[in-house]
Amino acid sequence: MQRHTLILDQPFFLEAGGQLPRLEVAYHTSPRAYRPGDRVIWICHALTASSDAEDWWPGLVGPGKEFDTERDYVVCVNILGSPYGSSGPSSVDPATGKPWLLRFPELTIRDFVRTSILVRKHLGIESIDLLAGASTGGFQVLEWCVMEPDVIRRAAIIATDARVTPYLTAYDTAQRMALEADPSFREASDIQGGKDGLRCARAIAMISYRSYDGYNNTQPEPDADTLYAARCASYQRYQGKKLADRFDAYSYASLIHACESNNLGRGRGGVEAALASIHARCAVVCIDSDSLFPPQAMRPLAAAIPGAAYHEIASRFGHDGFLLENEQLSTIFTSLCKS
Amino acid sequence: MQRHTLILDQPFFLEAGGQLPRLEVAYHTSPRAYRPGDRVIWICHALTASSDAEDWWPGLVGPGKEFDTERDYVVCVNILGSPYGSSGPSSVDPATGKPWLLRFPELTIRDFVRTSILVRKHLGIESIDLLAGASTGGFQVLEWCVMEPDVIRRAAIIATDARVTPYLTAYDTAQRMALEADPSFREASDIQGGKDGLRCARAIAMISYRSYDGYNNTQPEPDADTLYAARCASYQRYQGKKLADRFDAYSYASLIHACESNNLGRGRGGVEAALASIHARCAVVCIDSDSLFPPQAMRPLAAAIPGAAYHEIASRFGHDGFLLENEQLSTIFTSLCKS
Repeated sequence: MQRHTLILDQPFFLEAGGQLPRLEVAYHTSPRAYRPGDRVIWICHALTASSDAEDWWPGLVGPGKEFDTERDYVVCVNILGSPYGSSGPSSVDPATGKPWLLRFPELTIRDFVRTSILVRKHLGIESIDLLAGASTGGFQVLEWCVMEPDVIRRAAIIATDARVTPYLTAYDTAQRMALEADPSFREASDIQGGKDGLRCARAIAMISYRSYDGYNNTQPEPDADTLYAARCASYQRYQGKKLADRFDAYSYASLIHACESNNLGRGRGGVEAALASIHARCAVVCIDSDSLFPPQAMRPLAAAIPGAAYHEIASRFGHDGFLLENEQLSTIFTSLCKS
Repeated sequence: MQRHTLILDQPFFLEAGGQLPRLEVAYHTSPRAYRPGDRVIWICHALTASSDAEDWWPGLVGPGKEFDTERDYVVCVNILGSPYGSSGPSSVDPATGKPWLLRFPELTIRDFVRTSILVRKHLGIESIDLLAGASTGGFQVLEWCVMEPDVIRRAAIIATDARVTPYLTAYDTAQRMALEADPSFREASDIQGGKDGLRCARAIAMISYRSYDGYNNTQPEPDADTLYAARCASYQRYQGKKLADRFDAYSYASLIHACESNNLGRGRGGVEAALASIHARCAVVCIDSDSLFPPQAMRPLAAAIPGAAYHEIASRFGHDGFLLENEQLSTIFTSLCKS
């Protein structure tokens, strides 16, 4: 895919009341110009991913793949607050010439979608054939279906929910507390601050992304007589380090806070009413072992969207199944696009 | 219950190779002397509890309760490493006259049981009618059943496992990383160090103690139009503070490390062989919504103990159900004691 940046040299007003004096939005597209009539596949990425969907969803996006970057016009926008090119805590506040860090204004899921809509209009796209997103990406898909019901023709709503649950908030808060336990985060003197807290936050998040069986099957202790279990400890530390090497604590804090704004029903008479207003033909996809967005939550979500199909993917990987169960996802996308 | 302290003025050698120059073991008993012929109920407490079982298990322990502190001889020993009276990081290292903090030697579950055995012998108790423990308490119950098969007549093995799972290690590691993200923990200049990390560690642990439904049912966001979910965030922070106010980070680190040693099969030809050696009549009790010790792990545990009965408690509270589902536990204990 090809990387672009949309720059808006005027204030961008945020739902929570703040504003950005200038907006940058990074996005990736198929490596050519959009042509009216193209099948448009729009992908919304999850928390710490980038707009390079071919990079983080290689089983599904690329030349000859389910989302064919040669045949289709594939788009993915980097969410606000992320360090991968869109305006966020790691970008420079024009007023000070330094990164925003903790002074970056609060974001919401609706802000993410509003920047995507700017990109859509900039590209001249009037209709999206398939909008797909999992997790935080799914929050955006649902919002967008409600904000522009006549633009989104089909939507794949994967491993997600229409409103943040207290259970997800419990995880987000523990992660926020990890960031705050690291004084270099609070000092906010440079973008390297809070890395110890960030490593811990990621280790916490990993638990929510995997499952009991996932950990136990993939990280068994090799030695039956070991005195202290160590293998999964080093796995957790490795996952923390891997994120901290590619992400900053301020962007992370901004994004988990934005997740706390996820509430499709806000100002719309509640979640049920908002879901009922969706026109897109939807496939609601649940991963059976997902501890964050389990079937008991996703089944009623599907039932509340007019005409939506509910699919359950069998996976032992938990929430992260959306990154791994390509074959099952592919089948669902193919059938949704034919409908 | 009545509080006592057993002091051993000689070195106590630990499984991991360290030693304590002097051992203190705090314990609670029924408020009278042990009389041979008494029905002995021995309770093993979980991670952050104390030996005052009447305090933390009030629905089951006390005068006239299932474990009747007047009729029965009830005993509970405070585990090593805990700040509630037994030798641990918060107690004074005689060599320096200061709290041990990070210099306290590594502990294992077997060390906990060996100190309990010292107390048992000190009290002149030769046979335990019922040994009961949940979670970390259950680790001790299993160990004790193997270490003294002819002393333990009956055992209630609740919400626990015979070996630490990678999934539990994932949680423990995230908590350890939270402690380490707080530099005041690493400085270890006094017992107040690491409180920010400890608050976060507790918030992480809470997720493992509760369940998806538990959080969602008890901490729903009160306002349908709220911009950022906040109620469960304040609940998580409150839980963190509550522990940090009564516990220290060094004891906590020592105890979660000890949990990583849980492996009934170590040096005994594996877990199956160790479980097969148990003589006690066992009730294995699983809480159906327990994410740490789910039915898929506890059913085979029960099957591997000769003659053990398997019980599943219905609860929406997850692992913490062992502190709340008194009626169901009571029924199981009564039937076990009659068998």
